[in-house]
Amino acid sequence: MQTTAPFSPHDASSNAPAAGSLRLPPAEPPYYVAGGEEIALFEAAHADGTAVMLKGPTGCGKTRFVEFMSWRLARPLVTLACHDDLSATDLTGRWLVRGGDTVWQDGALTLAARHGAICYLDEVVESRQDVVVVIHPLSDHRRLLPIEKHGEIVDAAPGFQLVISYNPGYQHSLKELKPSTRQRFVTVGFDFPPPDVEREIVVHEGRVDEATARQLVELAIRVRRLRDRGLPEVPSTRVLVAAAKLIARGISPVVACRSALSGPLTDDPDVLAAIDDLIRGMF
Amino acid sequence: MQTTAPFSPHDASSNAPAAGSLRLPPAEPPYYVAGGEEIALFEAAHADGTAVMLKGPTGCGKTRFVEFMSWRLARPLVTLACHDDLSATDLTGRWLVRGGDTVWQDGALTLAARHGAICYLDEVVESRQDVVVVIHPLSDHRRLLPIEKHGEIVDAAPGFQLVISYNPGYQHSLKELKPSTRQRFVTVGFDFPPPDVEREIVVHEGRVDEATARQLVELAIRVRRLRDRGLPEVPSTRVLVAAAKLIARGISPVVACRSALSGPLTDDPDVLAAIDDLIRGMF
Amino acid sequence: MQTTAPFSPHDASSNAPAAGSLRLPPAEPPYYVAGGEEIALFEAAHADGTAVMLKGPTGCGKTRFVEFMSWRLARPLVTLACHDDLSATDLTGRWLVRGGDTVWQDGALTLAARHGAICYLDEVVESRQDVVVVIHPLSDHRRLLPIEKHGEIVDAAPGFQLVISYNPGYQHSLKELKPSTRQRFVTVGFDFPPPDVEREIVVHEGRVDEATARQLVELAIRVRRLRDRGLPEVPSTRVLVAAAKLIARGISPVVACRSALSGPLTDDPDVLAAIDDLIRGMF
Amino acid sequence: MQTTAPFSPHDASSNAPAAGSLRLPPAEPPYYVAGGEEIALFEAAHADGTAVMLKGPTGCGKTRFVEFMSWRLARPLVTLACHDDLSATDLTGRWLVRGGDTVWQDGALTLAARHGAICYLDEVVESRQDVVVVIHPLSDHRRLLPIEKHGEIVDAAPGFQLVISYNPGYQHSLKELKPSTRQRFVTVGFDFPPPDVEREIVVHEGRVDEATARQLVELAIRVRRLRDRGLPEVPSTRVLVAAAKLIARGISPVVACRSALSGPLTDDPDVLAAIDDLIRGMF
Amino acid sequence: MQTTAPFSPHDASSNAPAAGSLRLPPAEPPYYVAGGEEIALFEAAHADGTAVMLKGPTGCGKTRFVEFMSWRLARPLVTLACHDDLSATDLTGRWLVRGGDTVWQDGALTLAARHGAICYLDEVVESRQDVVVVIHPLSDHRRLLPIEKHGEIVDAAPGFQLVISYNPGYQHSLKELKPSTRQRFVTVGFDFPPPDVEREIVVHEGRVDEATARQLVELAIRVRRLRDRGLPEVPSTRVLVAAAKLIARGISPVVACRSALSGPLTDDPDVLAAIDDLIRGMF
Amino acid sequence: MQTTAPFSPHDASSNAPAAGSLRLPPAEPPYYVAGGEEIALFEAAHADGTAVMLKGPTGCGKTRFVEFMSWRLARPLVTLACHDDLSATDLTGRWLVRGGDTVWQDGALTLAARHGAICYLDEVVESRQDVVVVIHPLSDHRRLLPIEKHGEIVDAAPGFQLVISYNPGYQHSLKELKPSTRQRFVTVGFDFPPPDVEREIVVHEGRVDEATARQLVELAIRVRRLRDRGLPEVPSTRVLVAAAKLIARGISPVVACRSALSGPLTDDPDVLAAIDDLIRGMF
Repeated sequence: MQTTAPFSPHDASSNAPAAGSLRLPPAEPPYYVAGGEEIALFEAAHADGTAVMLKGPTGCGKTRFVEFMSWRLARPLVTLACHDDLSATDLTGRWLVRGGDTVWQDGALTLAARHGAICYLDEVVESRQDVVVVIHPLSDHRRLLPIEKHGEIVDAAPGFQLVISYNPGYQHSLKELKPSTRQRFVTVGFDFPPPDVEREIVVHEGRVDEATARQLVELAIRVRRLRDRGLPEVPSTRVLVAAAKLIARGISPVVACRSALSGPLTDDPDVLAAIDDLIRGMF
Repeated sequence: MQTTAPFSPHDASSNAPAAGSLRLPPAEPPYYVAGGEEIALFEAAHADGTAVMLKGPTGCGKTRFVEFMSWRLARPLVTLACHDDLSATDLTGRWLVRGGDTVWQDGALTLAARHGAICYLDEVVESRQDVVVVIHPLSDHRRLLPIEKHGEIVDAAPGFQLVISYNPGYQHSLKELKPSTRQRFVTVGFDFPPPDVEREIVVHEGRVDEATARQLVELAIRVRRLRDRGLPEVPSTRVLVAAAKLIARGISPVVACRSALSGPLTDDPDVLAAIDDLIRGMF
Repeated sequence: MQTTAPFSPHDASSNAPAAGSLRLPPAEPPYYVAGGEEIALFEAAHADGTAVMLKGPTGCGKTRFVEFMSWRLARPLVTLACHDDLSATDLTGRWLVRGGDTVWQDGALTLAARHGAICYLDEVVESRQDVVVVIHPLSDHRRLLPIEKHGEIVDAAPGFQLVISYNPGYQHSLKELKPSTRQRFVTVGFDFPPPDVEREIVVHEGRVDEATARQLVELAIRVRRLRDRGLPEVPSTRVLVAAAKLIARGISPVVACRSALSGPLTDDPDVLAAIDDLIRGMF
Repeated sequence: MQTTAPFSPHDASSNAPAAGSLRLPPAEPPYYVAGGEEIALFEAAHADGTAVMLKGPTGCGKTRFVEFMSWRLARPLVTLACHDDLSATDLTGRWLVRGGDTVWQDGALTLAARHGAICYLDEVVESRQDVVVVIHPLSDHRRLLPIEKHGEIVDAAPGFQLVISYNPGYQHSLKELKPSTRQRFVTVGFDFPPPDVEREIVVHEGRVDEATARQLVELAIRVRRLRDRGLPEVPSTRVLVAAAKLIARGISPVVACRSALSGPLTDDPDVLAAIDDLIRGMF
Repeated sequence: MQTTAPFSPHDASSNAPAAGSLRLPPAEPPYYVAGGEEIALFEAAHADGTAVMLKGPTGCGKTRFVEFMSWRLARPLVTLACHDDLSATDLTGRWLVRGGDTVWQDGALTLAARHGAICYLDEVVESRQDVVVVIHPLSDHRRLLPIEKHGEIVDAAPGFQLVISYNPGYQHSLKELKPSTRQRFVTVGFDFPPPDVEREIVVHEGRVDEATARQLVELAIRVRRLRDRGLPEVPSTRVLVAAAKLIARGISPVVACRSALSGPLTDDPDVLAAIDDLIRGMF
Repeated sequence: MQTTAPFSPHDASSNAPAAGSLRLPPAEPPYYVAGGEEIALFEAAHADGTAVMLKGPTGCGKTRFVEFMSWRLARPLVTLACHDDLSATDLTGRWLVRGGDTVWQDGALTLAARHGAICYLDEVVESRQDVVVVIHPLSDHRRLLPIEKHGEIVDAAPGFQLVISYNPGYQHSLKELKPSTRQRFVTVGFDFPPPDVEREIVVHEGRVDEATARQLVELAIRVRRLRDRGLPEVPSTRVLVAAAKLIARGISPVVACRSALSGPLTDDPDVLAAIDDLIRGMF
């Protein structure tokens, strides 16, 4: 069983600048409204250093949740948005020439492993295979990171935990996590919050009154029912907050919803018209 | 709520040369004729630092609008034309060897984030995934830009705002913005201006008389009706201005319209003949 | 309205060697026989700095026309043959290490923009998207070239003009200029010259007598009628000149036409036989 | 017949840092419960230096087995997770610039060959052809590693043995080991352990009581029967241990199984519901 | 009209080592038996500096012919075998670091252009587009080679001539020379020599007696008739010479023909059996 | 006619380290049992420096044969396993920076050409086109290797001979040697040895008694008959030796054959069962 070491960003032997990729846990808890048992599950996994996969749609608060857990567990956080051009080298580190000499610079994942940070790989399914494979030995009983280029095998410090996010709604026919990767993670499911929680978020983040927030959440519920009518994805809590902010700045609710809610969702004229009916019916 | 800092191009710690990517807001307002509520929407989004997506066809004034807003909001402007070979490194920065030493050069996006500039990514759908993903943390509540290579996390300065343009008319079966990207933006819709506004633009920019401009705009309206007959895109205000300029230089209207209006639209002999009928019917 | 600055290759701040990409306007006019209103159109576009697209088949004189206009307008000329491996860096410039120091070398397009040259991109449709996109800000009202790598935005000098060539006869199912690119250009159409002009060219360039030239042009007209019978492209004026040169060197007309006219056109035995009938019927 | 040399990590001429890729055999035997004749087969192959292919599904203990054999045979271990971006250079070594001079750094495979280590290539089928081909001369009577870049041919030290793992359950239509590669290995088959062995592992590794372990193993058996109903792969012993750990931390068995067992297996709502029935029927 | 300058390999300003790519014209004429009017045609084209395309099947003497013309015209020869990885840089030249300084090294094409050599691009259809495009300005009236990287435009010296080879028998559905490239060349057709000429070559090169050579040529004629029965290409004069050499070394004619003639042609058992019948029928 | 120079590895001007790629001919003949006229054919080809293609299935002794001929002809041997990432540069050589200066390092093919070695390209069909093309001038009457990067044309030393191997059993729909490459080689066919020869090899290499070897060879004959029942390739002599070695180490024949013979051949349960029947029927 793993005990969590006190975090000290200064006692690592890596180069100073790269330490910047590490965010210290925030002093104040980020605004986060819990939806279920995600906190207990995450804490149980963290206690054993088990890797976690956050499963859920766009904009439902996965990134915010990780920031919240970084505060709650008092662990530093390293966040990496994954994409096709992120290489294993970006994660593990590289040799740099500085002042005529060659010095080693830890990559973000190495940094996280050395410091016992939470390492959050956002949308990991977008990564190349070499990135996915490099996290394998960190996500089983070995908890180590071999760095061929540096001739070193880093044992993850206590407190280190891998977290990945994954949106099962997308159809990636070509890109998928292999079973041998998936079975290294326990999953924490996410979905849009229940109406009263979502309303509270819209009031808090969007700075509108209770009544407007109620209308926006009700509108979202109706639009989300259109999913089977050609919407690639339904409006997230994030777009409701964006619409609320425009309204708080004096834009009319109908214009704000067209700009923040229907515009980002689709370019299809028929679907746009259907959403417009819902918007005009609400305000 | 974000307040806008006074802009000073000299107090940044980045290398001087790269500052050249930044255009100071113009002293005089660029010629721009407003078509609707785009200015109010943009200002409301800017006040919260919300990212904006400009949606609309080719040549309807999106670039001009961003230059106008740069003047109106008195923020410097960084413009990037997106394409397949633009990498995240081009945006965030790179290490250069200068005089035997290695120095860091901010990329255009980093520069914009440090200076609180408006950062305009033209035709963002042409970008690679790594470019799209790198703007994610700048476009949500975090407003930060992690630069793995420099070991730094840049917090966007007040006034920084992401703006992207997008033409929904193209059929990009393979290239599309993912919902998780789209839902980070509020949209501002653009279309060709109404006839009298377009006529005013043609007179002002194309230096022809009122009557000729009226004929050119009327011709455009008729050609735009051919959209369903094989035109990949209809003539923009830009090509009307180009035709007007040729006429102002003494080229006959028919030759000018063939050169500036039908030639750029299509190579299809049948469609060219159909447009030619419209041209000869007008002049 | 743009006025044309006197050209001086020596007052630019770029490195000397790269200036070699620039050809000074020739002292004597290149041999060019005008076919229509292409000169007037080009001059009108040049007076406003409007970009020009030359549309027409292989070997009909587009390159020669640009050389002629370089002489007539007394502007230096930069010519770039486009292909898949030409990068934006090749056009805008790169950092070179010279004598232990890093110096900037302007690319051909930058050089043209600084010196107010005519910049001719031959077969632009073969370029990669990054090359096409880099010319966008040079081809609208902005007339500027952002060079991210050098941290500089170059304003095109007066006299600078973009010219691209394009052969609409090829079927590029995958490669096409996007409407947002095409609508930045006015077009100048090219085709094979009328028979008497073509005959004059063959006499002048091919050094044969009037009668032989007449036979060659007549043969070309007949072969061009075979276009629908499997010829990917018809014989250009260039191949008539090549055949004439062989005849002037003592090769028999039949052998010369097989070598210079039918051989380059096709490998298909049936089409070759059909052309051979026409050759033997003529001589 | 090969005799095994005593291992000494200090008498090799390679650079010190890279030696870090080598793990000394562990002092204590790793926890491993033998399932059949795999130990005898591996030892027989090792005695002749014959290469071994471990065939079996995800998470059934192949990696643990190799660690166990490293202890049992007292040979150091080099582990490499294979992927598309691993190059022959990563395996054989590269030239580095250090302090103005160029020094050679052995790659992980070279290191293993010099030190007579067991070299384990995990999921070798994910490698590129150049990686697969580079191991050919090490896996036949020659037992040598040509390093073109270093101008050297390394003879493998006694004790060196190649081990690869391979999951025949995946359908890699494009990626397959060629017969000329496969016939260089003797195979050792792996499968999930029998119920009582698996229960013992869950108790030991997952820290739950005998009864809970029995329920988890019984659940796994039932879920594995669903293979033909849309599961890409069945739950491994690893996920049972992960579920047990969550239960040991106080998470309810149903929630723990959803998080550790069904979540990682699939995103399909129907399959998830079927597994959920099995979970709720068990606890 | 072009006059041919005396060739002097020493008065060029390029770096000495690269001059090695240039072969001086041989002192003695290479063994070459003329088949038709290819020598007259080539000389006529050479006199005007017109580029030449050699069209014909594998192993019929195209390379030998170019060596012969290099002797006859007393021009140095640069030969380049084309393939997918040959870049424009390989042809035009590159910057090298030598002794702390950066020096320019001419590529093979530049070398040929400076020295007025014959530049032979073998199997040009295998090249990438950038290689094909780089030869365009050398193959029309301009006769120049722009080298963007060196900031130089090289005017081809008198005597410079481009020669390419091309095998129309291959079916390259994806790779084809574009008409705009083909129409820059006059063609010289090649085919297998007539029987008595081929017999003379086999005697001279293969060192067998007249009777054996007659049998080998007769065998080739019969095998060539099998073209429509599944042979991708028929046996060339080259394979007849190879069979003759084996016979001259004491190998029996049947074994020699199986080894040198049928083995290289095909792996298809049925076609091999058919050829074997012809071999055994002949000897 | 070529005479063979005495081999001296020390009088070459290339860098010392790279000489390591060259293996001196072994002092003792490698164990090799001749199957037919392959030795006479190879010697005849070698005497003229003619290139040789070894055609045959996996594991039938092609590599061993080349080692044997290296001993018999007393020529050094360079072996290269071909794959997709082997470049022409790897074969011809490259510039290295050593101690602040740039020195040239011969590639393996250049080394072989300078020293008159036998150069063996194993599985040449896996190579890229640039590798295949680079050997063309070495495999015809020219016997030279142009090295553009070093500005040098290397004439192959006497004794130099190109040998390639090729397995016609694989179906490479995309990768094939072109006729213009194949016709540069004489072929030497290989197949599995006749039963008594194969038995002798199994006894000698596998260290089992005559009876066991007889059973293993008989088993192989029966399994090879299954070729049409789904086996991508049949068991080679190599796998028989591997099974024999396991038996000699005390593994039971059935387990040894499953591990060394059926496991490497296939993953198909039905085919595995069919082979298992044959194994159990034999022992």
